[in-house]
Amino acid sequence: MRNLASLEGSQVIAIAEISPTARKRAQKAYPGVLVTANASDVILSTEIDMVAVVSPVWTHYELAKAALENGKHVFVEKPFTSNAQQGEELINLALQKNLKIMVDHTFLFTGAVRKISELLEEGTLGNLYYYDSTRVNLGLFQHDINVLWDLAPHDLSIMDYLIKTSPEAIVATGERHLNGYEDVAFMTLYFPEKVIAHINVNWLSPVKVRTTLIGGEKRMLVWNDLEADEKVKVYDKGVKITNREGVYELLVNYRSGDMWAPQLEQVEALHHELSYFVDCISSGEEPFNNGCAGLRVVKMLEAANESLKTKGTLVYL
Amino acid sequence: MRNLASLEGSQVIAIAEISPTARKRAQKAYPGVLVTANASDVILSTEIDMVAVVSPVWTHYELAKAALENGKHVFVEKPFTSNAQQGEELINLALQKNLKIMVDHTFLFTGAVRKISELLEEGTLGNLYYYDSTRVNLGLFQHDINVLWDLAPHDLSIMDYLIKTSPEAIVATGERHLNGYEDVAFMTLYFPEKVIAHINVNWLSPVKVRTTLIGGEKRMLVWNDLEADEKVKVYDKGVKITNREGVYELLVNYRSGDMWAPQLEQVEALHHELSYFVDCISSGEEPFNNGCAGLRVVKMLEAANESLKTKGTLVYL
Amino acid sequence: MRNLASLEGSQVIAIAEISPTARKRAQKAYPGVLVTANASDVILSTEIDMVAVVSPVWTHYELAKAALENGKHVFVEKPFTSNAQQGEELINLALQKNLKIMVDHTFLFTGAVRKISELLEEGTLGNLYYYDSTRVNLGLFQHDINVLWDLAPHDLSIMDYLIKTSPEAIVATGERHLNGYEDVAFMTLYFPEKVIAHINVNWLSPVKVRTTLIGGEKRMLVWNDLEADEKVKVYDKGVKITNREGVYELLVNYRSGDMWAPQLEQVEALHHELSYFVDCISSGEEPFNNGCAGLRVVKMLEAANESLKTKGTLVYL
Amino acid sequence: MRNLASLEGSQVIAIAEISPTARKRAQKAYPGVLVTANASDVILSTEIDMVAVVSPVWTHYELAKAALENGKHVFVEKPFTSNAQQGEELINLALQKNLKIMVDHTFLFTGAVRKISELLEEGTLGNLYYYDSTRVNLGLFQHDINVLWDLAPHDLSIMDYLIKTSPEAIVATGERHLNGYEDVAFMTLYFPEKVIAHINVNWLSPVKVRTTLIGGEKRMLVWNDLEADEKVKVYDKGVKITNREGVYELLVNYRSGDMWAPQLEQVEALHHELSYFVDCISSGEEPFNNGCAGLRVVKMLEAANESLKTKGTLVYL
Repeated sequence: MRNLASLEGSQVIAIAEISPTARKRAQKAYPGVLVTANASDVILSTEIDMVAVVSPVWTHYELAKAALENGKHVFVEKPFTSNAQQGEELINLALQKNLKIMVDHTFLFTGAVRKISELLEEGTLGNLYYYDSTRVNLGLFQHDINVLWDLAPHDLSIMDYLIKTSPEAIVATGERHLNGYEDVAFMTLYFPEKVIAHINVNWLSPVKVRTTLIGGEKRMLVWNDLEADEKVKVYDKGVKITNREGVYELLVNYRSGDMWAPQLEQVEALHHELSYFVDCISSGEEPFNNGCAGLRVVKMLEAANESLKTKGTLVYL
Repeated sequence: MRNLASLEGSQVIAIAEISPTARKRAQKAYPGVLVTANASDVILSTEIDMVAVVSPVWTHYELAKAALENGKHVFVEKPFTSNAQQGEELINLALQKNLKIMVDHTFLFTGAVRKISELLEEGTLGNLYYYDSTRVNLGLFQHDINVLWDLAPHDLSIMDYLIKTSPEAIVATGERHLNGYEDVAFMTLYFPEKVIAHINVNWLSPVKVRTTLIGGEKRMLVWNDLEADEKVKVYDKGVKITNREGVYELLVNYRSGDMWAPQLEQVEALHHELSYFVDCISSGEEPFNNGCAGLRVVKMLEAANESLKTKGTLVYL
Repeated sequence: MRNLASLEGSQVIAIAEISPTARKRAQKAYPGVLVTANASDVILSTEIDMVAVVSPVWTHYELAKAALENGKHVFVEKPFTSNAQQGEELINLALQKNLKIMVDHTFLFTGAVRKISELLEEGTLGNLYYYDSTRVNLGLFQHDINVLWDLAPHDLSIMDYLIKTSPEAIVATGERHLNGYEDVAFMTLYFPEKVIAHINVNWLSPVKVRTTLIGGEKRMLVWNDLEADEKVKVYDKGVKITNREGVYELLVNYRSGDMWAPQLEQVEALHHELSYFVDCISSGEEPFNNGCAGLRVVKMLEAANESLKTKGTLVYL
Repeated sequence: MRNLASLEGSQVIAIAEISPTARKRAQKAYPGVLVTANASDVILSTEIDMVAVVSPVWTHYELAKAALENGKHVFVEKPFTSNAQQGEELINLALQKNLKIMVDHTFLFTGAVRKISELLEEGTLGNLYYYDSTRVNLGLFQHDINVLWDLAPHDLSIMDYLIKTSPEAIVATGERHLNGYEDVAFMTLYFPEKVIAHINVNWLSPVKVRTTLIGGEKRMLVWNDLEADEKVKVYDKGVKITNREGVYELLVNYRSGDMWAPQLEQVEALHHELSYFVDCISSGEEPFNNGCAGLRVVKMLEAANESLKTKGTLVYL
């Protein structure tokens, strides 16, 4: 709300919210806005051009569909939908109605991810070897999805954005300790050309960790999103095999040079993203984090869930 | 050598070493010791009671077997052997000859692992939920084994010591970028009673990480082996499900209290381990890190390799 | 404003602000509030009971005086006034008018300072040996005061609160590199009973540091205000002189035990402070961070400035 | 001894050591070396060319003098001598005898200090603003000197090496809590051209800190000697005053760019230093860390002690 309210070129008309307490707080903070318990008051309003669906995953499809049917552009929280079929349906509906869908892959608008993308595209890292993310903390437990669906969409959307190809196969392992959903889980993604990605998510960690290692042929980087400054550190380190003639003659050379932490753009990512959506709606440009991007992430999550069911089968996409 | 030379109750008689440079250095540093290029000079010596096999994995079996056959107690680097069959053979041979085998699971002799073991046995952590280790750095590449065989034995031997049951099934994923062996790999171990363990090993990481998260029902801990002090931090944090009546009423309570870093024993682990082996040899006591402990680790590694071959099949032990 | 607006038992009536941009922003954010360029609109308003003076130090005296003369309770940013005489005058004026002054020593309302105070009062640390604070960062340069007057009031108010006695003498050193005011400065305070305090403040530091070491006879602590969790770490470490018979027989024993990080109260300190001021005004209770507390800090700053002038003379208070 | 023994072009002939236990250990480790309780056995030996004086400060003068008088080059631990007069006498004696003195300012041979020196000489940092070192830990208490004489010589020798001019005046403050010597102390040094330096030393700190901030007109750096890698971080940060026309128009611009951690030379500093001394003795070259460098540090320490006596008077050098 804070970000939506301050957006140039747009105005917040109405908020639908089930919780009476939250409604009261919202009404006090935004006296000029309609605050209602009923989502259809928003969806059916003729004054409204865009709806943001910020609700449990299992409600995304129904709410977004109703909004699209009533001619609204839709901003949907991640993950896009509960399954791929729902996502495809929404994408088609939006196409028919000439409406835009944006999926809230907020991290793609951070200075860190933009810089990493730049480093990859410029070839600073060389060919990619691996992407390894740890995203753990204590709670918050979700009631309708497991820890992979809750936390991994961040990493999956970032990978989708950075690696630019889709994974070929996925293995997911995990365990349920408390409420019937996996609260600790691990996911390996095999991408083409020997790129391997791994995600470690955990709702039962005593400490919060948000660290990603990215290894390339030429350089490697560490992205620690919890650092106040220097979130991204690029290491001029690498390995070169200089002789493949035989096991005994194999010479692995380690190259170790300077480290540098590039200055990152200081923007509030969500503000950036919403402002981009307003622009896309005005200009007709298709957002890069559209329904299709959201769908690709949902497909990876579906494959992960299928793998999880059998404690780690390789699932091809 | 430094540790062996300073041990009470023992004396170093001979060193066998292939590299001429290393031999020269050894001879200068230990003028009274026989330095030879030939392992059999050591193995056949009648003056010698114990042999330490500190060599590539694929040589362990042959060297240890020769030593046992010649009546020597054997200290073997981890991993014990290249496969389970070799390990079983050595164990049987030692039994027949009434000799001791100790596998160098050095971490079991550190103040950190001893304290964690104490915390688990006293019930401080409550029932175990998960064990999650990250052990990554740049190199050193091994020429005859992959990164799992190189780095995971540390974690596997610690798990074996702490969890006290064997895993039921293992999933391993990974990728080979350089020399035909996996240089990035991930391993999930399913133990009984919903205990899940995970190991992240990587020879291509720009930074060195040695961090293990251990989650229990009552408390959780972080063991960062690279911290000079406060390697082990215990968090009085946890989760309680208070109401299971329905999805909407499910209340997850987070408990968050003090953190404490217990004072750890300050010993050099390897010295401690070697001194314990000398005691075991004298007293006839069976070391807890004997051939059987080494074999259990080798079996987990074999299962991991089998899983790796198919990019992540679940392999039952 | 955000904190004042959300306070129970009070209402924000008017904001006086010189900057037109800031006025516009304030008016948009708080439509129901009078936003004026003229401080006297606030000070003379008969609807208003309390005025918060949030402005450059050299304006505190004049604005607070006018507010008190017009029957308003006054909340003043730190440092209280530009000199001790002004502070004394305001205190007397408030007394005569039966009004309250609160000086914004926000840190006294943080979970960290409250916990440290508790540890000192309970005797956990034993007799205090030293208090050593580093408070450095890049800018923001003030236009009318040096770095000591800008940053040290935090530490001085905390010391005043924790140590409970006043310093006997002060030495301050520093240097001016840019705009005629010291931008790097160091301050030593001698308290009774061998308690020594030191403050390191710097507007030209590439990194932000907010770390305080506190040493006691029994235990020592580190307060790192930039840590997300575990801001306060208490070390069961100490030194005991066991034999004073002679220089050669002097035995210093180091005691080293557990470290623990107590759980801290999670409150927004400013909200807590303002709410406390509302309570003091209602109940007639004198706030502990009143004008006298503010005056004690100003006296220390005056002594520091006097010492700075001569590059570090010892100045008695 | 380990470093001396492994030096090319030299041989260790004799060790004089008071403690019987240490003598026994030395004899076992170095069977071919004469181990004696009597320093004069070393000093009078005709086989010996160089003596290393590694003993309490108050013994340096006497031992070094005897060594020089007997024609030995002398390597002396820091601080060089107990007072400036002793230092001058030793320097003159060495000159007369055509012998070399080297004072063990080990840090000057580290990769970190060499890199910082390079950055200063190349102008990367621009004009120097300040040098601010924190060097604190628990113990070891010295029996004959205060914490400034124990720990500050490191910083003073580094400053002397980097800044290349001598301080004009010194202020030192501190307190004695335990054994009659200051165990907590702070030292400000005023150098020409507004360069200010500060040293914070403490034997009663619960944590070990070895951090130096160095601020320049163009860039700033942080040297954290306890980091395994990335000991030196250079920040492309700075401040520019763009308008000096009036107090209100004063515009301070903050410049904030990349950070980089240059790769440092990986050498054992002490080995490097001793090898350099052997070279100096052979070639006749005067070591830059000679008696005069040692004397400059002793003069700063004497000034600091004088200032400490009066709790912080400004003492001119």
